[in-house]
Amino acid sequence: MTSEKIKGLVAATVTPMKANGEVNLPALDSYVKHLEKQGLAGVFVNGTTGEGLLMTSDERKAVAEAWMAYKDKFKVMVHVGGTSYAAAVDLARHAEKIGADAISAMGPCFLPPSRAEELVAFNKIVAAAAPGTPFYYYHIPGTSHVNVSMLDFLKLGEKEIPTLRGIKYTTYDSMTMQECIAYRGGYYDILHGHDETILTGLMLGATGGVGTSYSVTGELYNKLLDTFWAGDLAGAVKLQEKAVEFIRVLIKYENSVVGIKAILQVMGVDCGPVRLPMRNLTPDRMKALEADLRAIGWI
Amino acid sequence: MTSEKIKGLVAATVTPMKANGEVNLPALDSYVKHLEKQGLAGVFVNGTTGEGLLMTSDERKAVAEAWMAYKDKFKVMVHVGGTSYAAAVDLARHAEKIGADAISAMGPCFLPPSRAEELVAFNKIVAAAAPGTPFYYYHIPGTSHVNVSMLDFLKLGEKEIPTLRGIKYTTYDSMTMQECIAYRGGYYDILHGHDETILTGLMLGATGGVGTSYSVTGELYNKLLDTFWAGDLAGAVKLQEKAVEFIRVLIKYENSVVGIKAILQVMGVDCGPVRLPMRNLTPDRMKALEADLRAIGWI
Amino acid sequence: MTSEKIKGLVAATVTPMKANGEVNLPALDSYVKHLEKQGLAGVFVNGTTGEGLLMTSDERKAVAEAWMAYKDKFKVMVHVGGTSYAAAVDLARHAEKIGADAISAMGPCFLPPSRAEELVAFNKIVAAAAPGTPFYYYHIPGTSHVNVSMLDFLKLGEKEIPTLRGIKYTTYDSMTMQECIAYRGGYYDILHGHDETILTGLMLGATGGVGTSYSVTGELYNKLLDTFWAGDLAGAVKLQEKAVEFIRVLIKYENSVVGIKAILQVMGVDCGPVRLPMRNLTPDRMKALEADLRAIGWI
Amino acid sequence: MTSEKIKGLVAATVTPMKANGEVNLPALDSYVKHLEKQGLAGVFVNGTTGEGLLMTSDERKAVAEAWMAYKDKFKVMVHVGGTSYAAAVDLARHAEKIGADAISAMGPCFLPPSRAEELVAFNKIVAAAAPGTPFYYYHIPGTSHVNVSMLDFLKLGEKEIPTLRGIKYTTYDSMTMQECIAYRGGYYDILHGHDETILTGLMLGATGGVGTSYSVTGELYNKLLDTFWAGDLAGAVKLQEKAVEFIRVLIKYENSVVGIKAILQVMGVDCGPVRLPMRNLTPDRMKALEADLRAIGWI
Repeated sequence: MTSEKIKGLVAATVTPMKANGEVNLPALDSYVKHLEKQGLAGVFVNGTTGEGLLMTSDERKAVAEAWMAYKDKFKVMVHVGGTSYAAAVDLARHAEKIGADAISAMGPCFLPPSRAEELVAFNKIVAAAAPGTPFYYYHIPGTSHVNVSMLDFLKLGEKEIPTLRGIKYTTYDSMTMQECIAYRGGYYDILHGHDETILTGLMLGATGGVGTSYSVTGELYNKLLDTFWAGDLAGAVKLQEKAVEFIRVLIKYENSVVGIKAILQVMGVDCGPVRLPMRNLTPDRMKALEADLRAIGWI
Repeated sequence: MTSEKIKGLVAATVTPMKANGEVNLPALDSYVKHLEKQGLAGVFVNGTTGEGLLMTSDERKAVAEAWMAYKDKFKVMVHVGGTSYAAAVDLARHAEKIGADAISAMGPCFLPPSRAEELVAFNKIVAAAAPGTPFYYYHIPGTSHVNVSMLDFLKLGEKEIPTLRGIKYTTYDSMTMQECIAYRGGYYDILHGHDETILTGLMLGATGGVGTSYSVTGELYNKLLDTFWAGDLAGAVKLQEKAVEFIRVLIKYENSVVGIKAILQVMGVDCGPVRLPMRNLTPDRMKALEADLRAIGWI
Repeated sequence: MTSEKIKGLVAATVTPMKANGEVNLPALDSYVKHLEKQGLAGVFVNGTTGEGLLMTSDERKAVAEAWMAYKDKFKVMVHVGGTSYAAAVDLARHAEKIGADAISAMGPCFLPPSRAEELVAFNKIVAAAAPGTPFYYYHIPGTSHVNVSMLDFLKLGEKEIPTLRGIKYTTYDSMTMQECIAYRGGYYDILHGHDETILTGLMLGATGGVGTSYSVTGELYNKLLDTFWAGDLAGAVKLQEKAVEFIRVLIKYENSVVGIKAILQVMGVDCGPVRLPMRNLTPDRMKALEADLRAIGWI
Repeated sequence: MTSEKIKGLVAATVTPMKANGEVNLPALDSYVKHLEKQGLAGVFVNGTTGEGLLMTSDERKAVAEAWMAYKDKFKVMVHVGGTSYAAAVDLARHAEKIGADAISAMGPCFLPPSRAEELVAFNKIVAAAAPGTPFYYYHIPGTSHVNVSMLDFLKLGEKEIPTLRGIKYTTYDSMTMQECIAYRGGYYDILHGHDETILTGLMLGATGGVGTSYSVTGELYNKLLDTFWAGDLAGAVKLQEKAVEFIRVLIKYENSVVGIKAILQVMGVDCGPVRLPMRNLTPDRMKALEADLRAIGWI
């Protein structure tokens, strides 16, 4: 296991589906061709954007396996979380078996724990099922309803979870993010999770980001990263302004998961519809989305 | 399929576990012996109390099958809900195959829908996998984060879900409950879900209740039902006062799921610990619980 | 000071305003004429419905004084709460001076306290400014954001607030309501606050209700009370069903405060618009409201 | 009226109180002596930290007047907001009369509006009462419960509120903050409101910050500002790390308002207790606070 940090962009990938809602693995190929142009360090599979919790364990395994075919192109991080640690253990074991570069699990959104103790104990079991694979906790309190302090999580987790490598940090609380990045001399890999504010993460020392938009915005964001790392903060801010324009459109229609699949479609990359309980865009709303993208120069 | 309503008490059952967190099916037997003394109309299996979402699909199937051994003693309602309709479909199909008396599904707690349309569409797919089995929607917004109006759900659901039989109604909004009970001349079976306020449901016309406490409080509650149906409202209110005393203790320690397993233990019915992310009571807190139960005369 | 309980209906009155938003005291007269037909035990002045917190202290005093002119017709309860105990003290002193039958204060919605200790200490100061006037705590957590257990409040409050007479109880948690009604042998006057579920309160022993709809629904609700007290529970349930129909319309447009002023207008009782930050109905929405009222036979 | 922006730190000041809870204006003098050492651009009076909504209008006027005695030392921004626009109008008129440099109003926390239209209309009336004084909207959704998009507010507000100068922006949503800063070519003065993340604001173009901690942390923060503006981002991040250490202690005890008054006390600046409904620290907790401050080298 490595202690290096992920540098650059990790796309929180969608899972291609057929019109009838079934997983569509053959469609991965054209999606990956599109992703290759984005300049990605990795892909995050079966997460929120990937509709991981909307699939069965068998489907999740099949999707994870399919992504492994592209492991020479990107690091593959497999999300194994859900409401049951027992199911997550099964998925973690599978992820290690197929050679995933890392696994990740969000806090359990059913009866969400409020203390670091239970959250660590839960993830300890999950991580232990993939003892040779780096583990990233997936902090996304707005979605998982798990809002334990990540600094407390690291302090307890480092004792209990040998494979703990970092956090996919998806919330606006950058005060705690700074504490996590600074913790133990900067040991942990704190991945920035809200694409629209990545400069805050970079400024605080994050080297990578995991996000939904990178399936489409890779070129812009790589320029932003390079500009920032070259020391041109004002230039990077300007580029983030462009990114924010895009993300306003991405989240305007239902949510970013519906949005990214619809935008991919508009861009000619057909990954199909989202699953229930999400709502797909009607033809009228698809047209409105297209108009919005055109207005800001994305198509 | 029947159109009769459930009359009386349905226990939201716990799932016995071993100390290591594995499901403990052999322990069901002594639990069932205890339940038989409660005078139950049915059991609700793999729900919130049953830690349904904390188990794998395989575990849930094994638990449901084990309960079917007692189908001559109680109606068996199997909860099949979770975050994925695909997983729920699989569980619903299985429940019908093993002869469950009814199935139920809570709203999906991950990316919870806000409109009746998506909620009905989601449950339509689930219910269709058990076309010969009555379907009860499980309304528990405080836990599932799905808070669609149940009147809207019935109005749309009756067109889309042929097996829709009713609702397990677990929220304090008795205004909407009254509307649901009155809807279509009282056709739907609206099961009261908050034990502590069952009289409100009975008054509005509910004939049954599904609850966590009935694993222990059956005798008291059956007396309450009889007293109410005999027309002695004041007497029933007094009995509900006793029930509320108990339920204050039930929910004082973590939550009612942890509470009921601990109380069963105190009463000599060992169903083991709860699973993570819930927290089991320490020996000290077990003693405090015991003292509380003694103080109100339950042990 | 009396220890009797309020029996019957107390209207949470609106405050008449002019088109320019100024308080319109002369309009009270025709409003009161309308209220007299409702068969009310009392009026609750300057509360949520009365836009109390949207007025200055001087305006609140002027409104309270104006209502005292009708004290032979109804008991007058004056709401003195807000975000500042100092302002509430001033209003409480004034209310006692003008002879209010009772005062009431909601929990402070700015920096809302989470413990009974602070909430009692806050209200102790307020109540002490009207030492000869019964004090009712106004529990409305959905609006005030103060959600302290009312049983804890009574237990601590009875030691600290000599004038504590009861609670205006506006939340659906009827478990705690039952505990409060039963507390100290039924000593406290727990007034039911959600009109649509008044039967639950009556069943548990409440004898009075304070509500927004009673400005209009008095006749129906008095029939409901009489029916319930005459022992005809099923009949009372049917009447509550009618009441719920009305309340659905009342809360359909913005909120019940906007709704009741608009409904009064439709019924020919002009109390003017609501104040900002609330939004008044456009002519189109007024027509829709009128159509809704007609559809359920209220006009 | 000026169109320049505030540059540097504005302390959200406390309001000195006596042990009995009365406002203690004579204590301002020693507090101001302490503030002068902080290197402040201005003071924000009667805001959240100043317990503005916990005072009467008369008290707020007296406090505002007392601060005007120091107007040669700092710009004086007077907060006039509350639940009533009528009360705010009165306070705004007074603030202009006494020569305040700016006024500010938070969104009304009682019946909080959800649309920009009502929020702008509310503030339009308030701002119009001080037609010669710059108006800053005070955005603090976590406290005011008003969470309208600030970009929408600016777009509508610029048409309706001639004195609109900017926003005191106290929430972690820096995506919208960036949009507001960029809006109209950077015309509006968007003041950073969460001290612990000021670098994010500076990076996006904010030139000033209003915060509770600056009563104590001025020296550190001025160094941080200078370091950032000198182009040493890494150095500024290190300084923000120090600031975060302090703010963890500030918010650890009840909330930052209780915390800052207690910390001032520890530092020998006696501004007295906070008002109910807040809870003052017990002697034991004061000692713990002192120990915490010592541990991070602040005393």
